Parts: sequence; structure tokens; C-alpha cells
Amino acid sequence: MESMMIYMPIVMAILGLIYMWVKRSWVLKQDAGDGKMKEISDYIYEGALAFLSAEYKLLAIFVVIVSVALAAVSFIVPTTHILIVVAFIFGAVFSAFAGNIGMRIATKTNVRTTQAAKTSLPNALKVSFGGGTVMGLGVAGLAVLGLTIFFIIFYNYFMGGAEGVFSVDKMTIVLETLAGFSLGAESIALFARVGGGIYTKAADVGADLVGKVEAGIPEDDPRNPATIADNVGDNVGDVAGMGADLFGSYVATVLAAMVLGNYVIKDMGGSISDAFGGIGPILLPMSIAGIGIIISIIGTMLVKIKSNDAKESQVMTALNLGNWVSIGLVAIACYVLCKWMLPENMQMEFFGEGLQEISSMRVFYATLVGLVVGAVISSVTEYYTGLGKPPILKIVQQSSTGAGTNIIAGLATGMISTFPSVLLFAGAIWTSYAFAGFYGVALAASAMMATTAMQLAIDAFGPISDNAGGIAEMSEQEPIVRERTDILDAVGNTTAATGKGFAIASAALTSLALFAAYVTFTGIDGINIFKAPVLAMLFVGGMVPVVFSALAMNAVGKAAMEMVQEVRRQFREIPGIMEGTGKPEYDKCVAISTEASLKEMMLPGLLTIGFPLIIAFVPMIFGMDNLAIAEMLGGYMAGVTVSGVLWAIFQNNAGGAWDNAKKSFEAGVVINGEMTYKGSEAHKAAVTGDTVGDPFKDTSGPSMNILIKLTCLIGLVIAPILGGHADNNHSSKEITKEIVLKNTDEMAKATITTVYVENGVEKTKEEVIKGTLEEVEAKVAALKGEGVHGKPHFKMDASKEEKSKMVKIEIEKNI
Amino acid sequence: MESMMIYMPIVMAILGLIYMWVKRSWVLKQDAGDGKMKEISDYIYEGALAFLSAEYKLLAIFVVIVSVALAAVSFIVPTTHILIVVAFIFGAVFSAFAGNIGMRIATKTNVRTTQAAKTSLPNALKVSFGGGTVMGLGVAGLAVLGLTIFFIIFYNYFMGGAEGVFSVDKMTIVLETLAGFSLGAESIALFARVGGGIYTKAADVGADLVGKVEAGIPEDDPRNPATIADNVGDNVGDVAGMGADLFGSYVATVLAAMVLGNYVIKDMGGSISDAFGGIGPILLPMSIAGIGIIISIIGTMLVKIKSNDAKESQVMTALNLGNWVSIGLVAIACYVLCKWMLPENMQMEFFGEGLQEISSMRVFYATLVGLVVGAVISSVTEYYTGLGKPPILKIVQQSSTGAGTNIIAGLATGMISTFPSVLLFAGAIWTSYAFAGFYGVALAASAMMATTAMQLAIDAFGPISDNAGGIAEMSEQEPIVRERTDILDAVGNTTAATGKGFAIASAALTSLALFAAYVTFTGIDGINIFKAPVLAMLFVGGMVPVVFSALAMNAVGKAAMEMVQEVRRQFREIPGIMEGTGKPEYDKCVAISTEASLKEMMLPGLLTIGFPLIIAFVPMIFGMDNLAIAEMLGGYMAGVTVSGVLWAIFQNNAGGAWDNAKKSFEAGVVINGEMTYKGSEAHKAAVTGDTVGDPFKDTSGPSMNILIKLTCLIGLVIAPILGGHADNNHSSKEITKEIVLKNTDEMAKATITTVYVENGVEKTKEEVIKGTLEEVEAKVAALKGEGVHGKPHFKMDASKEEKSKMVKIEIEKNI
Repeated sequence: MESMMIYMPIVMAILGLIYMWVKRSWVLKQDAGDGKMKEISDYIYEGALAFLSAEYKLLAIFVVIVSVALAAVSFIVPTTHILIVVAFIFGAVFSAFAGNIGMRIATKTNVRTTQAAKTSLPNALKVSFGGGTVMGLGVAGLAVLGLTIFFIIFYNYFMGGAEGVFSVDKMTIVLETLAGFSLGAESIALFARVGGGIYTKAADVGADLVGKVEAGIPEDDPRNPATIADNVGDNVGDVAGMGADLFGSYVATVLAAMVLGNYVIKDMGGSISDAFGGIGPILLPMSIAGIGIIISIIGTMLVKIKSNDAKESQVMTALNLGNWVSIGLVAIACYVLCKWMLPENMQMEFFGEGLQEISSMRVFYATLVGLVVGAVISSVTEYYTGLGKPPILKIVQQSSTGAGTNIIAGLATGMISTFPSVLLFAGAIWTSYAFAGFYGVALAASAMMATTAMQLAIDAFGPISDNAGGIAEMSEQEPIVRERTDILDAVGNTTAATGKGFAIASAALTSLALFAAYVTFTGIDGINIFKAPVLAMLFVGGMVPVVFSALAMNAVGKAAMEMVQEVRRQFREIPGIMEGTGKPEYDKCVAISTEASLKEMMLPGLLTIGFPLIIAFVPMIFGMDNLAIAEMLGGYMAGVTVSGVLWAIFQNNAGGAWDNAKKSFEAGVVINGEMTYKGSEAHKAAVTGDTVGDPFKDTSGPSMNILIKLTCLIGLVIAPILGGHADNNHSSKEITKEIVLKNTDEMAKATITTVYVENGVEKTKEEVIKGTLEEVEAKVAALKGEGVHGKPHFKMDASKEEKSKMVKIEIEKNI
Repeated sequence: MESMMIYMPIVMAILGLIYMWVKRSWVLKQDAGDGKMKEISDYIYEGALAFLSAEYKLLAIFVVIVSVALAAVSFIVPTTHILIVVAFIFGAVFSAFAGNIGMRIATKTNVRTTQAAKTSLPNALKVSFGGGTVMGLGVAGLAVLGLTIFFIIFYNYFMGGAEGVFSVDKMTIVLETLAGFSLGAESIALFARVGGGIYTKAADVGADLVGKVEAGIPEDDPRNPATIADNVGDNVGDVAGMGADLFGSYVATVLAAMVLGNYVIKDMGGSISDAFGGIGPILLPMSIAGIGIIISIIGTMLVKIKSNDAKESQVMTALNLGNWVSIGLVAIACYVLCKWMLPENMQMEFFGEGLQEISSMRVFYATLVGLVVGAVISSVTEYYTGLGKPPILKIVQQSSTGAGTNIIAGLATGMISTFPSVLLFAGAIWTSYAFAGFYGVALAASAMMATTAMQLAIDAFGPISDNAGGIAEMSEQEPIVRERTDILDAVGNTTAATGKGFAIASAALTSLALFAAYVTFTGIDGINIFKAPVLAMLFVGGMVPVVFSALAMNAVGKAAMEMVQEVRRQFREIPGIMEGTGKPEYDKCVAISTEASLKEMMLPGLLTIGFPLIIAFVPMIFGMDNLAIAEMLGGYMAGVTVSGVLWAIFQNNAGGAWDNAKKSFEAGVVINGEMTYKGSEAHKAAVTGDTVGDPFKDTSGPSMNILIKLTCLIGLVIAPILGGHADNNHSSKEITKEIVLKNTDEMAKATITTVYVENGVEKTKEEVIKGTLEEVEAKVAALKGEGVHGKPHFKMDASKEEKSKMVKIEIEKNI
């Protein structure tokens, strides 16, 4: 049984995909409603497919370019294998396919939810959540399936599988090649999340500016040419974007945990003997991911309500039940798997503290840390963005003195929300590391991500319900239908906010795990920010998320302006459009959003990919030491991660807070003792805040996840080029030392000329010791003899020191 | 001559102060105008003094508390000397005194500028810039005087001065004690900059909200009770706040450069022989600062215009001439001083690269880097915030679609402006480090700060002219007077923006220099962010500036609300106030701003001071290793610096951009082909942007400077407690190693128990090696014999390793 565990995740993934297919068939069998509903739904479906096909074209070009680049690198650099290209392409294809499944089902489920809402609320929830489940299982199933299959292929190819002889170095090559799969997946996320974010807000803002503000027609009015684009946008941004984001996190987290598992084996002497072919610590994260799929299925089954008169809170309770049960089951699964798959005691190298004995129970504790973070971050997000919570009430109050104070209050809320969030992350890093080193950090992330399918089901049901409401409006259904979908939509808004919290938490932990994997791949002994070039790169890294956010925000502005002009043109040129007799050209608006979003994501995408490549390769051209470059790139990665997490939290929560401050006016709020409603001056100020918040929470904020993960993944793929395990192969170093000792009556000076060969280039370095003759002689003596290790005055890396020898000592007097 | 160089900076400082006094007498001799003007001026003067005296009360309490804490620490920790308390108190007193001089002269110069403007524009410039010069020389003179005097005192006390025997360790104690002076100065800056920032915006926003918006009376109308508070605020925030900020930077930069100069001597073998008593590298930064005062005097003398019909550009040219000439002279002075005071060749330790030979010319190049940064950052700031520049025009365009798009455009502008700024800083760090290590970085900062007096003169003349315009308005002078002061005010707005750029650049470089000094004080060998606790602290540090900014912004909101209520009350209750027959109670409004500002700065102040203390002392209570804590605190400092610099640039430039976008409407702008003026919808949107920008650019943005410098200074003061040069005295370490080797048929395992004594506490650590018997035996052999240095598998710090010995080796079979 144990030796077959490597196939377990595949089985679980296939079971998940089968369940997904069954659920999908069930959803598609539901009544899709009457003519008008079906027509609108078809528009949305076609709009979504139009975006997908445009995205695929661009993607294909991108994948070809990156594949060629990767192939070129694998020919030049002996440590990079050509199979990474295959892994990359499949990573992209799997992620794109998962997104495709999700988009198709979401755009088919919306109309069926509207139809189900005609009968009862429980039915509507069943259908919409069913659609979400299909999405969630599609993403999780394909992620686990793809990653596991390629791991097994590479494991067999490079090492002969379980029959072969285990070697840490060979496993490193397996995992380095597997990183291609993760890179492919995250590249799709860049397109889906960033492009999708621009799409959805361009359509939303464009539709609102002309429709609501200029023409004075309500939201989701079928006369508005941009309304279909708006509804497509919900699916593009919130379904496909979120799905691709979590697909990427899922794969990257498991991969990073596997890399660090390999290093646990290295720390234990290079091999362990267990029932799992000696790779238990590597298989563990995959197994947790596999079990997580089955647990998520159980969780989704628990989400149901009985009463047709249920309110938001009951729906929320049903979702929470499913969520909490799956988190609890994951905790149990982690306990069993850690106990079963890991050696009872492991040795792990802690930087600066040497090897430590770590029990398998401590790894389990680390997974608990991850589960706690996933749960708590949602509460934190809920506190800062939830309707009726103090921060929102404060923004509402500040709206009474105008848009300026509303904006300040919203910004301040987003900024302050970084306080508990960052303390939570910092605490999680610290404790999970204290329990089980960076392997612990990576497994904390893995445990948190185990319920990805469940999280995505909860996330995706929101936009589906939102769409269902839109269809009800556009097809002029009875008010009760819209009331029912509104209940689901309101819950969906809350889950959207907490889902963003989960996504950023997962991105943060994933990046840290990738960061740790990066350090082990390069073989550097840490990232010392007291070296000025590393510190400089920390600064540059910190700046990139800020500039990226600005570019994303500007992109929305530009795309929305194009949309505004197109809608204005249609209102002007199409006869009878306002009377409902003329037909708006929905497809034109869809095309504008599609093109603009993909065009505008180029610059931020280039920034994301370009910076790490410049940092890695430009100094290389100037002959800088590879390990020094690796440390600089590490500093850059840390800067991007720290700053990116901060800006993600700030923007997501500020945006969420503005949104709900505006929504508060719908039910009426008390300002200075007076009930205030929609249409008041304070409400107008709140609308301004929401306009600013829209790109914050749906474009630039969530894009940060992709930015930090992709940056760390690019680092990981570059890592083998920069050195690491293969360092000795391509950079032979040889050192001769010449020591010249001069002394005056009082002072002595020793000049040490070191000659060494690095990457085939001969280099010279001069070092000088000064002091009294006695001191200098003692130091020289230490350099010559065994004393060197006692006081490593001339600190060099081990390989250099090992080969160093002193050829001459000269003492001059009275210089 | 050379041996007297230690007194040179004092002489220069005294010359500067004498010139200041002469200039001051000249300004005070100028005509202070007629009755009404004098009356208003007196109100402002008294308001400013009221703020100062309230501030001094709070300061006194603060200084007493910190002094007691420092004294307690100096009794407990043997490496901290009680004299640090004296230095701290004097640092605070000197900075407060400098601020006092500045505030008094500024509030006396304003009315004299108005009066001078009655005669001609050149006279008005002469008077207002004269006031600025007094401020600049007061700050620079007192900073150099205080720092030098205390250095000489401590140098004589701890080392016997030039006659004593130089020792790096003793000089370290001298400089550690001197750090108290810097801490005192920066504490005042916290009160002046943060409190002042809250004051000025509370008064400004409060006066505008009721006066302009509700009552419909113009700005600076004497009927508005908050108008005096508003004018006081200009002095409190822009004169005293900026002065204290630069006073702090100036002192901290020179101090850090001296610390690093001491380490240059250490790297050169512990002593050098030069004509300056063997402390040339330590005296150099002080000498540059001293010469800078004289150069600044020359620079200020060049600022004059001749034509009465001059426009903004001529005034700007006059200021630029003075500025550029002083920068040029500093470059020449740096060349001479570097050549003269430094050994022709020095040895400096570069982390990871060993000792390198650095010529004095390379140090000079590093100072040039600093001068270039100071000049370029002003241009960058000018580009992103200047009237008529593309980013401003874009914000103006975006104002046409409402406040929402105006806000987004402003935020994006501030965010994007981090791109060139951060690249500039990163480039400066890298190149100045490449030229001359961290000593080079510190000297780059010193050279940039050498023209502080000139920069402050340029900065302070802005608010003086602004006040002069206000007095002209309130005392109902002829339009020509206001026109002339408006020209000066417009130039003042530009110099205010570029001055903020200079202030953040100086804060950034100062923090880096302090950061480097911190590492050398603690004796840690770098800050490795691959250790999870260090990484966690990097995150926490990154979060603090964000939360600090939010608190500062909220503080402005709260204080402004109090002001609004007081003004409303006066309008309601004082009969005849709107007709000009009733007299507003100006002092009530001044009192509200004063109290609110000092009360509201408590929380951000506590955050700034509390976090580093918690990070340093809480883990200490739990018995964590001191060097590990030092590394964590270093990570925190880096996080605060990187994030703080980013948020400072973002907020300053976004605020400046919004401000000038609004101002653009005064002369009229072309939007969509139409001329648009004040009062239009677009202008209203721009006013909203400016409301958001006010606390950004005048409160939270500039506060970042203090936050990052104070954080690094607190770290520097804590550093000796955490270890460093005195590490061996109070933490004796002894190590025994016991190696137990077990083997099965295939696998062998060696358990190494290490026992060592740290700070009197016996600690045990277990490490394990696993592998084949052959491998393990080889490793154990290496641990036992000389081979240890070849492959430092058990990496520990040198002191531990030196004392380690292995007492037992045991091999068990078939475990």
C-alpha cells in the first residue's frame, strides 16, 4: 500500500474530476428558462467564450515565446533540462483548461439559477453552488492531476522511479523541471487575473458612467450596450481570474513543499529509508492535496438550506458549515498523513542554528498553523469590509462631509487593516518555521490550500448569483425572483471579500515557500541585506508592486474610457435603442473590453517578468559572481513579496470597505442622528469612494497575488542557472595566495594577493592586514596553519577556502 | 594646523551662528508695517509661541521619561554609559532651540515681507529669504556645534583626546554615547514634524470646511476664527517641522559616517597614523558639515533679484543659482578634504568579499553620488508635481469625469513616481557602496546634507511668503502687494515640493547609514532574511509605515472636526462676527489645533518607539540569543526603511500633484477642447483630490522621514545592549561536544550534543548527521580534526567554535 502512495493523489484527482463531471451534467440538466432569459444567457456565454478565444490566441503566442526562451536556456545551461519546456506548456494548458471548464459552467449556471429561483431559494442555492462546485473541483482536480503525473514521469525519467537509487541531486533536477509546470500555470494566472481584472472593471465602470450617470437607466438594463460585457466581466474576473490564481497557488505551494521535503532528506544525510521509497517527505504535500479534494467534496455536500424563507445569515451558515467541516477534516488528515508518511524524527538544518531534531508531530503543528491562518484572515477581512462593522460605519459617517473625507477614511481603513493581517502572517511564518523549518512553512501553506476546491466553490457561487440577478432584471422576472437571487448575491459579496483574503494569504505563504525553495536551489547560504547590492534590490523589489498597481489602475481608466465612447456612439447612432425597439450591439462592447484588457495587461506583465530577468542576466553579462547575483535576486524577491502583500491587503480591503459603505445607504444609515438614503449628498460621496475602490479591489489588489508568486517562480526557474547544486561543474575555482608582510618600527602591514579562477576567468583580489608586528604575524600564522578555521578573518565560501594555499610569505622591514 | 582640525567644525558653526545673528538683527530692524498688519502678525506670533510652549511641556515630560529609561539601561548594561543621558537631553534641547529660533524669526519676518512688498519685489524677496536664511543657519549651526562639542567632550573623557591612545573599541563607546545626542534631536523631530503636520492640516481643513464651503467667505478672511490657526500652522508644520526633520537628518548622517569611519580604522588593523591624531576618517564627515555652513552662507548671498517686474521664473533662477553654486562648492570642498584628511589608500571590509583597497579618491566619488542624488531627486519631484507637467495635465483631464477618476489619477501618479525615485536611491546605494563601502554611503549622505542651511533657507522662505500674503489679505492692502507676495508664494510652493524630495532623500540615505552603523555596533555578520524570524520582522517593519500613515491621516480628520465645531460655534454665538463688528476668538482655535495635534501624535509616536523596543526586549525575556535578536531588529529596520521610503514618495508626490492639479484651474485649463476655470464641475472634483492630498503631503508623507530615522536610531542605541564589541565581556560561551555515532547495516547516524554557556545559562543543542557509515565517519572525522574549516557543516559563530571540543565519540551498531 505504502509504495503505491505516489499514485494516490492521481486517484483522488480523478475521483474529484468524475464527481465534477457528474455535478456538471446535473447542473446542465436543470431548466434553462424561457426565451428571453435564454437569449441573455447566451449573450453572456458567447461574450465569455469571445474573451477566452482572444485570450487563448495571445496565450499561444506567449507560450511559444517563453518555450523558445526556456529551450534556449536549457541548451546553454547544462543544469536545465529541455523537459522543463514540456512541463511549462502543460502547466499552461491545464490551467487554461480548468479556467475554460469554470467559465463555461458559470455562464451556463447563471440562467439556471434564475430559473430555479422561480421555484424556491433552496433550489437556487443548490444550482448556483453546484456550478461553483464544478468550478472548484475542476481547478483542484486538474492541478493535482497535472502536477502528480509530471512528477511521476520525471521521477521515472531522471531517477528510474521507486526502483532507482534515490539521490538528492537527481531529485532536485526532477523538481527543477517540475517548476516549469508551475510557471506555466502562473503565467495563465497573469492573463486571467490581471487581464480579467481590467476587463471586468472596464466594463463595469464604462457601463455605469454612461448608463447610470449619463442616460439615467438602471443597472443591468438591457438597453445599455455595455451590460452584457459587464456580466461577462463578472465571470472573467471573479470566476476565471480567481480560479487561475488559486490553481497557480495550489501547484506552486505543493511544488515548493516537495522541494523543501527533498532538502529535509538532504539534511538527514542524503537518504532515508521508509515505506514510501525513501521519499515520504516529498510525497506528503501531494498526498495532502489529494485528500483535500475528497474532503472538499464532502464539504460541498453539506452546503444546503431547507427553508424557502431563509435569509442571508442562514445561507452564510450553510456555507460556513461546509467550510469548517472541511478545514477540520483536513486537520485530521494532516495528523494521520504526517504520522504515517514522515520519519518519526527528522533532522533539519536551521540557518545559524545547525541541524535540529524535528518530530513528525511538529510538522503536523505547522500544518495547523496554516489552517488557522486561512480561517483567521477571512475574519480579519470580514471585520474591515463587512456591512455594519465599525470601520464601514466610520466611512459612512465621513461621507457626510463629502467625497474627500470618504476617500481618506477608506484609504485609512485599508491601510490599518494591514496591521492584524501582517502580524498574522509574520506570526505564521515564525511559528511554522519554529515547528519545522521552511518545510513547515511550506506545509502550512499546503494544508491551507488543501480546501481550495471548497473555497473556490464558495467564491464562484457569488458571481453566478450576481449574474442570475442580472438575468432576472434583464428578462423582467417577478420581483420575488430578484429578491431570492439578491439574498445569494449579498452572501456572495461577503464571500468575495473573504475569498480575496484567502487568496492573498495563500499567495503570501506560497511565495515564502517558493522563496525558501529558491535559496536551496541556488545553494547560497542566505540572503544578507547588509550587502549594498542586495539592499538596493530589496528597495527595487518593494517599488515594483506599487508601480504595477498604478499601471493596472490606469489600464482600467483607459479601457473604461474606450467603453464610454462606444456606448455613447451606440446611444447616438442606433435608432430606437432607448425605446427598446433598436437592438444594442453587445458584441462591440464585449470586443472592446476583451481587446483593451489584453492590450493593457502587457506593460504590467512585462514589468513582472522583465525585472527578475534583468537583475539576473545583466550583472551576469558584466561578469558578476553568480552567487552574488542569486543573493541580489533573492533580495528583489523579498522586496516584491513584502511590499506586494502589503499593497494587496491595503487595496483589497480599502476597495471592499468603500463598496460596502456605499451599499450601506441602500438600507439607510444614521448620520448625525438622521436617516440617510440613496440619492443623498453623503451617498454621492460614497459612490465616489466606490469608483476609486473598484479597480483597487478587483484589478490592482488581486493582481498583487500573481505578481508576487510569478516573481518567486521566475526566480525559482532561474535558480539552477545561477548556481546551486551544480555550482562546481561550471565554475571551477582555484586559488593561490601570496602574502607580503611589511613592517615599520611600530606598524606592520601584510598584503595578501589572492588569485583564483572563476568561470574560466582569472581574477585577483588584494587584502591587507595592519597592526603591530606581533598582531600581524599572528594573523599570518593563522592563515598559514590550521588556525584558519578559528578566526575566519578572510571569509570565503567553502569551495574557495578548500583549494586555497599560500605560496609565499615575505617580510619587509622599515617600509 | 592638522591637529586643530577637530575644532574646525565648531569654528565654522560659530561663524554661521554669528552670521545668523547679524542677519536676524537686520530682519528685525525692517519696518513691521502699520497697526492692522502688526496686530495680525502679533496674533500669528503669539499662536506660534502658544504651540511652542505647549509642545515644550509635553517634550519635557517625554525627555524625562526617556532619560530615566536610558539611565536605567546604562546602570544595568555595562556597555551603555550614563553620559548618553546627558547627550540625549542636549540633543533635544539643541533641536528645540533651533526650532524656536526658526519659528520666532519666521513669524516676525512675515509682516516685514508684506511691508517690504509695498515698496518692491526685490525687497520682499530680500526680507523673506533673509528670514529663511536665519532659520537655515540656526539649524545647521546648532547641529554642528552640538555634535562637535559633545564629540570632543566624550573623546577626551573616554580616550584622553588626541594625547590618549587611540582604540577602536573606545572610540565605539564614544560614538555610542554620542548617539544619544542624535536620538534627542530626532525625538524633537517626531513632535515637530508629526505634531506639526497634524496641526497645520487640522487648522487648514477646518478653516476651509466652515469658512470657504459653509460660510462662503474667502481664504485668509479675518472674520474666520480659524484663519490665524491656519497661518500659525504654516509656520508650525513647514518651518519648525521641516527644520527639526533636517536637524535630525544632519546630526544622524554625520554620526553614522563617524561610526563607519571608525570601522574603516578597524579594518586597517585598528589604528592609522595621520596628521589628525589617527582619526582622519572620523573627522572627515564633521569637517564636511562645518565647511557646508560657510558654503551655504555664500550660497544665500547669491539669492537676489534686481527687477521689480520679475516673474516667478526669475525668482526661481535666483534660488537655483544659490543652490547650484553651493552644491558645486561642496563638491570642491569634498575633493580637498578627502584628499587631505584620508589616508591615500584605505582597507575596507566588504561583506562576502573580504578586505579591499580603497583610495581616498573613491571616497570623493561617493560624495559626488550624494550630491547628484540631492539634485536629481528634486527634478524628479518637480516632474511629478510641477504645474504644467504631463502628470498634472493628466489629472486635470481626469477631473472632468468626476472626483473618482481625479482620485485614481492622483493616486496612480504618486505610485508611479516611486519608480524613478527608488531606482535613483537603489543606484545611489549601489554605486556609493561600490566606491567606498558603507562609509561611502554615509559620506554620500553627508555631502548631500552639507548644504542643509541653504536648503532650509529656500524651504522656509515659502511659508514666510505665504504668511505675508495672508497678512496682506487680512489687513486689506493694495492688490499690488498681494501680487508680489503671490509671486514669492508660487515659487515657495515649488520649493516646498522639491524640499520634500530632498528631505526624503536625506532620510533614506541617513537611515541606510544608520543601518550600517547598527550592524557594526551589534557585531552581527549581516542580516540574513532567509531566517524566518528575520523575514517575519521584515514584514512587520514593512507594515508599520502604512499603519502610521493611516493613524496620522485619521488624526488630521479628528482634529479638523473639532476645529469645524469650534468655528461653527463662534459663527453662531459671537454677535456681529460676519459683519466684521464682532471679534472672533482666534486663540480658542489656536488652542484646539495645539492640543489636538499633540494628543493625536501620541499613538503614532508610541508605534514608532514601541515596536523596536518590543522586538528587542520581549524575545530577550524569553531567553532568545542576543545576536539572533539583533538580526531580527535589523530586519525590522530594513522593512521600515524600504516601506517608509516608498510611502513617503507615494504620499508626498500624490499630494503635491493633486494640489497643483487644483491650482491649474486658477489660470484656466483646456479640457476636451474647452477652457475650464475655477467653479466648474471639474474644478470641484480637483478640490476633492486636494482635500485627500492635504494630509498626504503635509502630515503622513513627511512623517515617514521621522519614522524611518527614529526607528534606525533607536536600533542604534539598543545595539550595544544586544551585543557587538562587548559581546565577549558579558556573554561567556563555552562549548563541549559529544558525538554519538550509531549505525545499522546500511545507515549510520551520528548525534552530536553540544553544551555551551551563554550569558551564564547552560544550553544544550542536539544535531544529527545521517548517511552511509562511510559518509558519517568522514564527517565526524572532519569535526574532530583540522578539516573543520574546509566544510563548515556545523556552522557557528567564531567565538563558539574556538572554544568547542569533542569529548566523546561512540559508535553503536545495528540500532
